[in-house]
Amino acid sequence: MNKIAVVGGTGYTGVELLRLLARHPGVELQAITSRAERGRPVAELFPSLRGQVDLCFSAPDAESLKQCDLVFFATPNGVAMQQVPELLAAGVRVIDLAADFRLRDADQWAHWYGMAHACPELLQQAVYGLPERNREAIRQARLVANPGCYPTATQLGLLPLLERALVHPEGLIVDAKSGVSGAGRQAKVGSLLCEASENFQAYAVSGHRHLPEIRQGLSEAAGQPVELTFVPHLIPMIRGIHATLYARLRQPMQLEDVQAVFEQRYADEPFVDVMPMASHPETRSVKGANHCRLAVHLPQGGDTVVVLAVIDNLVKGAAGQAVQNMNIMLGLDESAGLDGLALLP
Amino acid sequence: MNKIAVVGGTGYTGVELLRLLARHPGVELQAITSRAERGRPVAELFPSLRGQVDLCFSAPDAESLKQCDLVFFATPNGVAMQQVPELLAAGVRVIDLAADFRLRDADQWAHWYGMAHACPELLQQAVYGLPERNREAIRQARLVANPGCYPTATQLGLLPLLERALVHPEGLIVDAKSGVSGAGRQAKVGSLLCEASENFQAYAVSGHRHLPEIRQGLSEAAGQPVELTFVPHLIPMIRGIHATLYARLRQPMQLEDVQAVFEQRYADEPFVDVMPMASHPETRSVKGANHCRLAVHLPQGGDTVVVLAVIDNLVKGAAGQAVQNMNIMLGLDESAGLDGLALLP
Amino acid sequence: MNKIAVVGGTGYTGVELLRLLARHPGVELQAITSRAERGRPVAELFPSLRGQVDLCFSAPDAESLKQCDLVFFATPNGVAMQQVPELLAAGVRVIDLAADFRLRDADQWAHWYGMAHACPELLQQAVYGLPERNREAIRQARLVANPGCYPTATQLGLLPLLERALVHPEGLIVDAKSGVSGAGRQAKVGSLLCEASENFQAYAVSGHRHLPEIRQGLSEAAGQPVELTFVPHLIPMIRGIHATLYARLRQPMQLEDVQAVFEQRYADEPFVDVMPMASHPETRSVKGANHCRLAVHLPQGGDTVVVLAVIDNLVKGAAGQAVQNMNIMLGLDESAGLDGLALLP
Amino acid sequence: MNKIAVVGGTGYTGVELLRLLARHPGVELQAITSRAERGRPVAELFPSLRGQVDLCFSAPDAESLKQCDLVFFATPNGVAMQQVPELLAAGVRVIDLAADFRLRDADQWAHWYGMAHACPELLQQAVYGLPERNREAIRQARLVANPGCYPTATQLGLLPLLERALVHPEGLIVDAKSGVSGAGRQAKVGSLLCEASENFQAYAVSGHRHLPEIRQGLSEAAGQPVELTFVPHLIPMIRGIHATLYARLRQPMQLEDVQAVFEQRYADEPFVDVMPMASHPETRSVKGANHCRLAVHLPQGGDTVVVLAVIDNLVKGAAGQAVQNMNIMLGLDESAGLDGLALLP
Repeated sequence: MNKIAVVGGTGYTGVELLRLLARHPGVELQAITSRAERGRPVAELFPSLRGQVDLCFSAPDAESLKQCDLVFFATPNGVAMQQVPELLAAGVRVIDLAADFRLRDADQWAHWYGMAHACPELLQQAVYGLPERNREAIRQARLVANPGCYPTATQLGLLPLLERALVHPEGLIVDAKSGVSGAGRQAKVGSLLCEASENFQAYAVSGHRHLPEIRQGLSEAAGQPVELTFVPHLIPMIRGIHATLYARLRQPMQLEDVQAVFEQRYADEPFVDVMPMASHPETRSVKGANHCRLAVHLPQGGDTVVVLAVIDNLVKGAAGQAVQNMNIMLGLDESAGLDGLALLP
Repeated sequence: MNKIAVVGGTGYTGVELLRLLARHPGVELQAITSRAERGRPVAELFPSLRGQVDLCFSAPDAESLKQCDLVFFATPNGVAMQQVPELLAAGVRVIDLAADFRLRDADQWAHWYGMAHACPELLQQAVYGLPERNREAIRQARLVANPGCYPTATQLGLLPLLERALVHPEGLIVDAKSGVSGAGRQAKVGSLLCEASENFQAYAVSGHRHLPEIRQGLSEAAGQPVELTFVPHLIPMIRGIHATLYARLRQPMQLEDVQAVFEQRYADEPFVDVMPMASHPETRSVKGANHCRLAVHLPQGGDTVVVLAVIDNLVKGAAGQAVQNMNIMLGLDESAGLDGLALLP
Repeated sequence: MNKIAVVGGTGYTGVELLRLLARHPGVELQAITSRAERGRPVAELFPSLRGQVDLCFSAPDAESLKQCDLVFFATPNGVAMQQVPELLAAGVRVIDLAADFRLRDADQWAHWYGMAHACPELLQQAVYGLPERNREAIRQARLVANPGCYPTATQLGLLPLLERALVHPEGLIVDAKSGVSGAGRQAKVGSLLCEASENFQAYAVSGHRHLPEIRQGLSEAAGQPVELTFVPHLIPMIRGIHATLYARLRQPMQLEDVQAVFEQRYADEPFVDVMPMASHPETRSVKGANHCRLAVHLPQGGDTVVVLAVIDNLVKGAAGQAVQNMNIMLGLDESAGLDGLALLP
Repeated sequence: MNKIAVVGGTGYTGVELLRLLARHPGVELQAITSRAERGRPVAELFPSLRGQVDLCFSAPDAESLKQCDLVFFATPNGVAMQQVPELLAAGVRVIDLAADFRLRDADQWAHWYGMAHACPELLQQAVYGLPERNREAIRQARLVANPGCYPTATQLGLLPLLERALVHPEGLIVDAKSGVSGAGRQAKVGSLLCEASENFQAYAVSGHRHLPEIRQGLSEAAGQPVELTFVPHLIPMIRGIHATLYARLRQPMQLEDVQAVFEQRYADEPFVDVMPMASHPETRSVKGANHCRLAVHLPQGGDTVVVLAVIDNLVKGAAGQAVQNMNIMLGLDESAGLDGLALLP
């Protein structure tokens, strides 16, 4: 049985990891750390786990973590990069759910995250954990950078078009919407029910940290630089991301042919569902599940392809994709522990 | 592998049964019927089931149903009683998630449900499917009446006090609150998002159909008639029931002793969780799970016991409890297929 | 005192008209009609109006309506066009909140609304009731077509750019999001709280009825045909529209200059608020109010202008704009009855 | 024109006061203070007020406040009592929306609020600002303690029964539910959308600060001590309180007679609406309005009276009632500035 630990387990990503790992048949959860909550039973903070997770939060302790086969970091940006080198040196494999290892360029990273990177030499070694792009590299990886939620939905929606150069690489529009859980469990006025419910707004239009991550991923897929406009919005609900993606065809195509491109691209993917033409995927159809559902449109027979992509930001957009990466790294069935169905309604 | 069918699968109770049965290790879903949607793939109506449930809705056909070991009815009140006698005669076991077999008294039933009962002779034979009261009878039952959602939460909250005659059997107050999914998937103005969200109200204060069911169950537990006031309310959310229960002690007691009564009563129950004293159970702590969580209070050291009980109305209050009953009837592990954790947040 | 009637007062647009007209200092509400609810006190259906509106719903009766100075139609599409000619002939002025008179081209109308137009000769005479474009024509109009909700937000957001030809007229992207009240008060499964809350999805991507209306309005503003992609989405909340608008500059511009264009364009408009640069308008900032708030962005200094526009779909997107049009037609203060502040939180 | 100031204007009670005062015909808002936000335009923090309130937050300055006729305190508990004596001495009249002057007994106050009272001598002088009980005293008052939200709904619901001794003064059950805005605009984890939406729970069952306030008010009405159990709950929505009140009749009564008692009691009250028998008042019917709507039930013809009372916790439960008190104190029309209709849907 593989020994697993979670560093930083008090946020929404952490509790979602616990929900998935508690039922996982191939791993054993050894420790869950939280400096602030050390000693407190996990199930006291999260009563949904009563009777299922018997651990207490422990202080982050490098020696204990080194006993594990794999460690998840579900910490704020900038924490993992301080601790990962020591763990890697001890032979522990790491999946970071934060952004510390997502960008290859340390200067870009410093620019967007407002601090110098603590171990820039690891940025090239880290594997970007989008299995639909990098499955083989993930299998061998010592360090996986789990993708951001917006980047996951956006890349899955645009990869088939860019990999085959069917659309122009500039002028891409990514109009993305996220449930409030994407903002985390920190006490912030903007995330209060009375501020965020019965309301809708864009944010960070001038520049969001997921922009360089998306640009990097799409550029790699396209084999050339892509240029995009990314506008995130806040949806008055808990879970779910909906990316509405606009791209212009290089050559006229029939919708059927675009649809076929998507179906072929994801034919063997266990967690990407290309819906029938003219579908409108609902975020709730993946609530609690690790799936991404996609639909393709070509409105008024024009040259603008519209791709609709939905994921649960806490599952395929965070903890579920991390478990998927873990399964690949550990040689387990890729779907192990990820077979729960979406909760509807 | 036990062969199972669901009659009436287009409502919220039906889709929840499908979610649970699709992952159940001990049964095989043979058919799901719907007169209105016959021939339509289930996963088209409920995209959350894409890739998981491959059946199409079929017309309700007695001959096919007779090939099953057990049939669930997730139909409106008054439908099951028309079809159950024939199935029972064919040796099929039945769990009715509607109200047709919940009351023992046919006149009472006719009064509250506005129609004559089609097979009153079965009312005595039917077993009321609250495992925490009737586990042994359920094991042998041919026909199980799955309890209502409010009655489940209310009875689990008051049984320990009434079985041991610790409280007065009259003057009980049941102030209950339910998410909107309790009203079903029918298109009704009152269930529209624009009517039911950002709103709270009581309904049916003069008399709700769950009142006689609660009265019957509590009276059996008390061994004498109980008298109660039942006020249901609508919560602006999808899932969850919160019952706030008020009863007056016959003799002064310490909170610790009341707590001990509850803990002993449910010590061996897999799905009833007595929380620590002074807890306030949250409905979301059981969202999607089959648990009932309870907490006991004795405010200001007075003689009024306050019990707080939460369930997911679609799980422990409907489909989950039905699967629990099925497991008992079929000799399976009582928790089989019911081990999913609550989705939080 | 001007005599006013509302035809079709049982929907959300109708009750919003009542809310505004009940407090309006310059008009007297004579009648509110509903075939289905005739004889029933308005305040019984809408308890929020208890003590404020003493009328009963009456049958739609042409003779009574002819006694009025102005009649609002808050009816389903296709109703007003049957009754308006007779009222106009009697000298009554009309504001139609439905779509019957919004398109100038009868064939287009028939194509998008699925029926022949009953009085195509009125389509040229009807004035499109967007005061920010057509204030003078509205003043003289006998018949005003009140704009749709999406078209109001979209046009107000793009007019300054198109009127001055600052952006390319093709490749416009209108990614719009609406609260569920836009779907009306009809009992439809898709509008149930349990279907529409905790969910986000696009709809009608292949073609929505507001597309030709937007195209007509923007083309008039641009003085040439515009080509756009319009994708509407459903927000899990009651009120509010957020339009995220993307257009490409013909010539490089500084954000300050784009901002100045907007500020000049709307300097004298009582209900259009150009927010400071880098703002992210919230739908709740106009909840219950007749304002449109706009913000302009030029992300990464590129050539893609992003305009964010918010309105309350039931106020500036329907009943409020109708009252604004009425005020203009009747020579009243344009803001009369529209001075309520947004309800926040 | 009366000069008015608001001390502490950054919370929900403060912004609601601003919404009401900005449209009030008889007062002029001189200052709105906030230590943390001094110098910042009010409309920047609350964009809903753009164009309506031109003030900036100012530092709380006793000398400026002394220039006012009346000062509202919308500050946390314990602040007003430090500043009120000086203002009263200067002849300024004060309405405190916090709890500092609600209890007559300084020891009780210290017990429930966890600090010694700074000016216990004022507790007897302060008038409890429930106009339906104390209108004449309010008219003359120098210092008004604006009631809490739960106490307002509860007292209005029970006064008619207790004043006429129709029910037993012990065994009262107050099962109350509040929207999340009752918890204020502070950044607290428990008030996050992801914690409080799609959830329902009780809180503070062992003792809530509104309990002694309710007990004091009801005891005064009854002319004898009353004994009650008070259980507050959190509703997943922004605004609204629903109190479900249970009392036992001393003598058998017909529902019609109980109804008549309520109608007579509130016949002349501008803001209390006794709905027809068998009604179920909705919180949304008073959203944004200063009304309390009540309905009376006598389920199953028993001896338990059930009263349903709804208010908007920020209006009749806070800022609206404060304005009503101000109107009475200043000799204005009691409804001035309070004539907005509820926003529905």
